Amino acid sequence: MALALSAVEPNPSGDAPYLRIATEEAYASREFLSAVSQLVDEGVDDPGLAAFFGYMLHSEAPRPTFVRERLPDLGEARLSDMDATGIARQILSMAAPGPNPFGADRGTALARNANDELEDACQRQPDRFSALATIAPQAPNAAAAELDRCKSRGFVGAIINSHVQHEYLDAQKFWPIFEAAESLDMPVYLHPTTPSKALIGPMLDRRLEGAIFGFAVEAGLHALRLIVGGVFDRFPRLRLVLGHLGEALPFWLYRLDYMFKAGGRRSRESRAARPPSEYLRENVWVTTSGMPWEPAIMLCRDVLGADRVLYAMDYPWQFEMDEVRAHDALPLAPDEKRQLMQTNAEYLFGLR
Amino acid sequence: MALALSAVEPNPSGDAPYLRIATEEAYASREFLSAVSQLVDEGVDDPGLAAFFGYMLHSEAPRPTFVRERLPDLGEARLSDMDATGIARQILSMAAPGPNPFGADRGTALARNANDELEDACQRQPDRFSALATIAPQAPNAAAAELDRCKSRGFVGAIINSHVQHEYLDAQKFWPIFEAAESLDMPVYLHPTTPSKALIGPMLDRRLEGAIFGFAVEAGLHALRLIVGGVFDRFPRLRLVLGHLGEALPFWLYRLDYMFKAGGRRSRESRAARPPSEYLRENVWVTTSGMPWEPAIMLCRDVLGADRVLYAMDYPWQFEMDEVRAHDALPLAPDEKRQLMQTNAEYLFGLR
Repeated sequence: MALALSAVEPNPSGDAPYLRIATEEAYASREFLSAVSQLVDEGVDDPGLAAFFGYMLHSEAPRPTFVRERLPDLGEARLSDMDATGIARQILSMAAPGPNPFGADRGTALARNANDELEDACQRQPDRFSALATIAPQAPNAAAAELDRCKSRGFVGAIINSHVQHEYLDAQKFWPIFEAAESLDMPVYLHPTTPSKALIGPMLDRRLEGAIFGFAVEAGLHALRLIVGGVFDRFPRLRLVLGHLGEALPFWLYRLDYMFKAGGRRSRESRAARPPSEYLRENVWVTTSGMPWEPAIMLCRDVLGADRVLYAMDYPWQFEMDEVRAHDALPLAPDEKRQLMQTNAEYLFGLR
Repeated sequence: MALALSAVEPNPSGDAPYLRIATEEAYASREFLSAVSQLVDEGVDDPGLAAFFGYMLHSEAPRPTFVRERLPDLGEARLSDMDATGIARQILSMAAPGPNPFGADRGTALARNANDELEDACQRQPDRFSALATIAPQAPNAAAAELDRCKSRGFVGAIINSHVQHEYLDAQKFWPIFEAAESLDMPVYLHPTTPSKALIGPMLDRRLEGAIFGFAVEAGLHALRLIVGGVFDRFPRLRLVLGHLGEALPFWLYRLDYMFKAGGRRSRESRAARPPSEYLRENVWVTTSGMPWEPAIMLCRDVLGADRVLYAMDYPWQFEMDEVRAHDALPLAPDEKRQLMQTNAEYLFGLR
């Protein structure tokens, strides 16, 4: 009960009768930001990365400037922002695109260095920070080994920022990662990035490749590929976390199942043994990152189950006191709200 | 009040205290099916069309066989299916991919012939059928003229099956179509097809390019392009209809607005004057085609307004008595249910 409230301890979540545990909170080392910037400047073969992250890394507009300042901070500025919005604990994770666009060795080194920084931060602030392990999926065996190293150092899961140089993790060469995550009991957070190059075409000229639309298509498709590709049949205890209320897959639950069944022989060419909703309800958790909005949150709780929906802020991309208040104001009983804001995260990530 | 119930007239919707008007009901002429089949066999430059419609046109499996049999029928078989499921009226529309993949002259001729068939059917069964005009957007001026011709023959709107040889209708060369639709007061139903070739890449190998996922990405992106591309600023009285409960855009309403505003200068490079939700609430209607599912229907009514959500079956792709019953069983007051099943359609399509 280390996180339980006490009348004599200060509660970082202020007057709220729960601790706010924010579960999709971005970090990026200065080394990583510089490396991505160099990739973009050198003309990386990834039009989404070049367009969206090029803008975020170079624009002088207020939002990109704030995000660039806060991403590497694991100290006073971040803690002060958490205090100002009543966030008791952030579960830190490496920002998109993560190490995915780099060569195998460079990506693996970037991941390891980031994890060392994250471990230090968690040791300095054990009551305020937890972290997901950064991995470079393009080196699957090294990534699996890094998960093992991170597990022993207190990391509570792993993050993967979607496509890996335009490949998806349903390809079996990546499955050592899922094997390790399952055996280490580490949830895998599948976070968006800009869509892969064969998916992004008509999003670019209208600036729809980022969080406004493209992120959801990329991560939703990726999750669906894992499902119909049989990943959860092979690793039935694997736990997947999706941000942004499941990238709309909960909205589509009925249709996914209907069309999976209607597909007949075509669906059976995939490896999934069961309709998509069964995996979405048994293997998937969703967070409210970027979606602090009652209608969609309530739908997800309704169709996936109240134990499957977790609070997230999406800091520093989205840092809004109004959005915290919107969560506090949800039409839920006190114990349901505590579940959403605190205890589901404690359970999923094994926080004591 | 021609459609009002009367104790002495037979009610095609049986015991229901409303008429079921189904608003996205597919038809395809035999000429059209044969022409699409020929396109596929000749190796059309459209991988989604080749994969998905190739399957639907050639497979001997029960569902494609049933769909192929029923699409061209505008007589006894269709009426018998309507009677069996209590559908009072179908609003008929040309099946995807419509005339879009053909040359301008061929597409225009196919559209005109289909409209002649549809007009005949509506004249034979004025109490059971209405129709949307088929057009070939690749010939924008001819398409506008065809809308005019169809309006004078009683058509109640137009249908466009999404991308036009991989182009989207926010390109200004297509705007004569919207100009005509607005001035003729004909709603435009933007129906999905398989995603354009620069959008479909990673959907194909996992068979996700059709109604299970790709349709929604294609049509949702298309609608969003119209919005941010300024179509509704230029044509403020234009009415757009989206199937499948708005292709999930209602689920994303909060995030669309947040990210549109957060995009700052990048968003302003688009032409839209206002955040996406304003157009979605003022210019867009959604139907329940393929989504006979309480959680998603109720969300759409909640966030768009009860007057913006209309019943559709998606016949013959989806022909399920259980789905009609699911609509009948929605937790709505009698007048709200009548609005969903009947009067919203009467209002939107100007049925008397």
